[in-house]
Amino acid sequence: MSQCITGIGASSGIAIAKAFKLENPALDVEKKSIEDPSEEIDRFKHAIDQSKIELEAIKDHAEKELGEDKAAIFAAHLLVLKDPELIDNVKDKIKEELVNAESALDEITGMFISMFENMDNEYMKERAADIRDVRKRVLAHLMDIEFNTPSMITEEVIIISDDLTPSDTAQLNRQFVKGFATDIGGRTSHSAIMARSMEIPSVVGTKTITDSVDNGTTVIIDGIDGHVIINPTADELATYEKKKEQYTQQKKEWAKLVTEQTVTADGVHVELAANIGTPKDVPGVLNNGAEGIGLYRTEFLYMNRDQLPTEEEQFEAYKEVLSKMEGKPVVIRTLDIGGDKELPYLNLPKELNPFLGYRAIRLCLDQQEIFRTQLRALLRASIYGNLKVMFPMIATLEEFRQAKAILLEEKEKLVQEKIEVSEMIEIGMMVEIPSTAVMADIFAKEVDFFSIGTNDLIQYTFAADRMNEQVSYLYQPYNPSILRLVKNVIDAAHKEGKWAGMCGEMAGDEIAIPILLGLGLDEFSMSATSVLPARTQLLNLSKEEIANHIDLILNLETDQQVKQYVEEHFLK
Amino acid sequence: MSQCITGIGASSGIAIAKAFKLENPALDVEKKSIEDPSEEIDRFKHAIDQSKIELEAIKDHAEKELGEDKAAIFAAHLLVLKDPELIDNVKDKIKEELVNAESALDEITGMFISMFENMDNEYMKERAADIRDVRKRVLAHLMDIEFNTPSMITEEVIIISDDLTPSDTAQLNRQFVKGFATDIGGRTSHSAIMARSMEIPSVVGTKTITDSVDNGTTVIIDGIDGHVIINPTADELATYEKKKEQYTQQKKEWAKLVTEQTVTADGVHVELAANIGTPKDVPGVLNNGAEGIGLYRTEFLYMNRDQLPTEEEQFEAYKEVLSKMEGKPVVIRTLDIGGDKELPYLNLPKELNPFLGYRAIRLCLDQQEIFRTQLRALLRASIYGNLKVMFPMIATLEEFRQAKAILLEEKEKLVQEKIEVSEMIEIGMMVEIPSTAVMADIFAKEVDFFSIGTNDLIQYTFAADRMNEQVSYLYQPYNPSILRLVKNVIDAAHKEGKWAGMCGEMAGDEIAIPILLGLGLDEFSMSATSVLPARTQLLNLSKEEIANHIDLILNLETDQQVKQYVEEHFLK
Repeated sequence: MSQCITGIGASSGIAIAKAFKLENPALDVEKKSIEDPSEEIDRFKHAIDQSKIELEAIKDHAEKELGEDKAAIFAAHLLVLKDPELIDNVKDKIKEELVNAESALDEITGMFISMFENMDNEYMKERAADIRDVRKRVLAHLMDIEFNTPSMITEEVIIISDDLTPSDTAQLNRQFVKGFATDIGGRTSHSAIMARSMEIPSVVGTKTITDSVDNGTTVIIDGIDGHVIINPTADELATYEKKKEQYTQQKKEWAKLVTEQTVTADGVHVELAANIGTPKDVPGVLNNGAEGIGLYRTEFLYMNRDQLPTEEEQFEAYKEVLSKMEGKPVVIRTLDIGGDKELPYLNLPKELNPFLGYRAIRLCLDQQEIFRTQLRALLRASIYGNLKVMFPMIATLEEFRQAKAILLEEKEKLVQEKIEVSEMIEIGMMVEIPSTAVMADIFAKEVDFFSIGTNDLIQYTFAADRMNEQVSYLYQPYNPSILRLVKNVIDAAHKEGKWAGMCGEMAGDEIAIPILLGLGLDEFSMSATSVLPARTQLLNLSKEEIANHIDLILNLETDQQVKQYVEEHFLK
Repeated sequence: MSQCITGIGASSGIAIAKAFKLENPALDVEKKSIEDPSEEIDRFKHAIDQSKIELEAIKDHAEKELGEDKAAIFAAHLLVLKDPELIDNVKDKIKEELVNAESALDEITGMFISMFENMDNEYMKERAADIRDVRKRVLAHLMDIEFNTPSMITEEVIIISDDLTPSDTAQLNRQFVKGFATDIGGRTSHSAIMARSMEIPSVVGTKTITDSVDNGTTVIIDGIDGHVIINPTADELATYEKKKEQYTQQKKEWAKLVTEQTVTADGVHVELAANIGTPKDVPGVLNNGAEGIGLYRTEFLYMNRDQLPTEEEQFEAYKEVLSKMEGKPVVIRTLDIGGDKELPYLNLPKELNPFLGYRAIRLCLDQQEIFRTQLRALLRASIYGNLKVMFPMIATLEEFRQAKAILLEEKEKLVQEKIEVSEMIEIGMMVEIPSTAVMADIFAKEVDFFSIGTNDLIQYTFAADRMNEQVSYLYQPYNPSILRLVKNVIDAAHKEGKWAGMCGEMAGDEIAIPILLGLGLDEFSMSATSVLPARTQLLNLSKEEIANHIDLILNLETDQQVKQYVEEHFLK
């Protein structure tokens, strides 16, 4: 009998294939006496060699498929494998104590792990995590236990797992991995964002999928409606084959709109832009017909490394993005680090509530050298395109004024140094903290634009960590409280002749799009793959008609009521 | 030469006395061989006995001065001292390994500490902290190092320390401790709240006080303006003796108002209420002339114990408070646990951002047995006074409706069981999450009252943890964004004929009081000791006059501008 499990559709599309369960093997090490240490050392060397070959392959694959930043994890693992201190210690232990390689490896790595973990330095703690990963891999070879990694998949499958870590997603091969379903996660979790950028249909947050599926069972992933069908009947297979075909057709229809403008049924033009993380994402932006970049998250430049990026490195990245976008608007957000995105080499203090802590502009205004280096790189790059600079996590007017003043200071210095800087740079801010949404009228007098960051705005407005499963029911983008704040921001911007955009997940959401159009949002920035569906939707909407419903919508009581209202009035 | 250091005035009043520095002694343990184990064991026993006598005295003192809940910490410490497994292990180690008592104690306790710390249970981890405290005390006796605890103070002093822990404040003797100053902390930190409830002048958050003061130096604490004067000149001493005298006079003036109503210069009555944590706080409420209790935080009933309080225990506590208040309004808030207030026996999951997590009403709606037990206790106690029930951390209308429905269900059950329940109970909610402040018009139709919890509302509105020093500059009660949200709540309540109160620190703040009066706040609930100063201030204010300034104030740009405006216009 077939079974249907419902989760959160994280990436659209239909996939049908056999289940491949990604599990952590149990590696229980038993200490044994041995007689021939040289034989045991050979076994150990062989396992190390096997692991090296495997890791080299994974690293190459990750570099090609996902870029060097993602591949850096595996380079670090390879370094561990080549560490003479670790290797020699294991060999010595085997020789001197006449114990099996498994237990020698386990004990020596255990010593290194606890040493690194006890260091008061996040960078060293990460090294401990690397050693853990490598130990697992080498032990699996020694014990001849199959170690499921996504890189080893060589046939078409659907991955079923509790969660996908960055290390897992770095190994996904689009050729073989047709879809995935996980127990945990939500629309904004790491695995969901990766799935959308790789265009792999997926359903997350199913809670029970790993308990419900056996390896090799046929599974259908319906990433459109968030269903997973296990062991489908012939009828179900036929239905979903058809749905898959329709989706492929629809994608072809979408593709026709790549070069089109986004104009509503009543002739209103809005801008559809894309969010990016690195210059490597730009081709995807252009292929999907985005009219600009509404959010370039610069923190990836600072991550997976052991020191700050230089001004030159940053300049090259910003220049590349601006040049490739050929004059289309590019909104670059200054460093938003802290919170969930830690930089080991900055030695930031551990915080009880990092999402309410020392991060983004708070850190930049405090550690100005970091900020000024980035601003100089941005200013120098400005002549290669249409740059708009955006400050994250602004909470008060003083913060915005200070950030802007520092930017103007650096600009003045460059001008003094006879370095060319664009005179057209717009300076704006994220609206993601409730105080700024409430005070938008005051801010609108001093900014060039707003971009509403709904992921954080929703999280703070409901005081609910969006990564915390137990309160994820409070991630309510359609709740009238959010819509009222959004309206306040848009109205305030327009009153001062400024533009208002949105760069959270909500901007590409089909329920939210009609409301945002009705509220007068000027720019919608989303995952590149959402641009064409959004354009298709907007072509058929009338802003004027929706505007007549706005008062009523803002006075509804709950998130659910708004969703229902939109479904009844503005979807198909 | 004298020196003045400025911090945050945490508790009003002037104190002049010699500095007493509360420091953690360095207890470096050296491992030594000994020859006579029985002599060493005697030394160890003696140190244990000394520690017991000391802890018994501290416990008795804490029970008398601060209640049994505070004294429970020391009862736990005494249990550690009497633990035969620990004691015998130390003795055995001395005997068998011929090592000194210090190192034996250090190693054995170290073993227990790491064992408890590695257990996946918060309750056990707390036991590790207890053992740490006790080890320090016994080691200090063994090494003959003076161990400064507040309980050992027998002359008039001003305590100077980095911070005061709950264990420190539990030992403060009002007779001797005239004031204190700390490096860290803010107006809402634990030590500040304790200082106000004990009426000990204090200044917190000075950053450098421990580096600036030597033991025995004369120090003046000006808790009114937040200054600490170190080594004052004769002139300064005279000035502050005078200020102290004036403050004493002022307190006498305030005392005359204990039985007065709170009526403004233009004849408007507002209600001044007090916040309490346990029934023991009620006498302080009445002595300070509060007209009711605006917030009874029930979580203390659940803390410092190893299981949930029974319905009967809760009933007795609620009945006591309601009876003693003799018909004056008593707002009791249902359990607000989670976040910073953990209950070890509930085994709550560790969260990355507890302030944005599973707590208060979220937990109560999920673990309904806990909630229903409390509601039954509240309902049964309702006939002994004027009860108003308030739900904390409401974010959405569904949550309020669900909480109210459960309360009505329990009420119906009691009626069926022929247990008497008041028919006059009002059901209200905290407004402390931005979404509810924005949606107050919708909520106002269904609640009987609002109470604005400014500590949390400010924290979420600025996305800044108020306990995190690095972002404490964002705790901005006067920022127009907060005032606009407060206005929205009050207006919405009045439109539906409901009342609106406030129970955060802001309600008793002299800058905020004029604005809140102008906005039409009906009830101000604060620390009991703030009631009379607030009444004095309100008697001289005209609501109508201030109301004319409100539009202007709400359109100011910053927290600082509002503060300045109020100082210029409404403070003498």
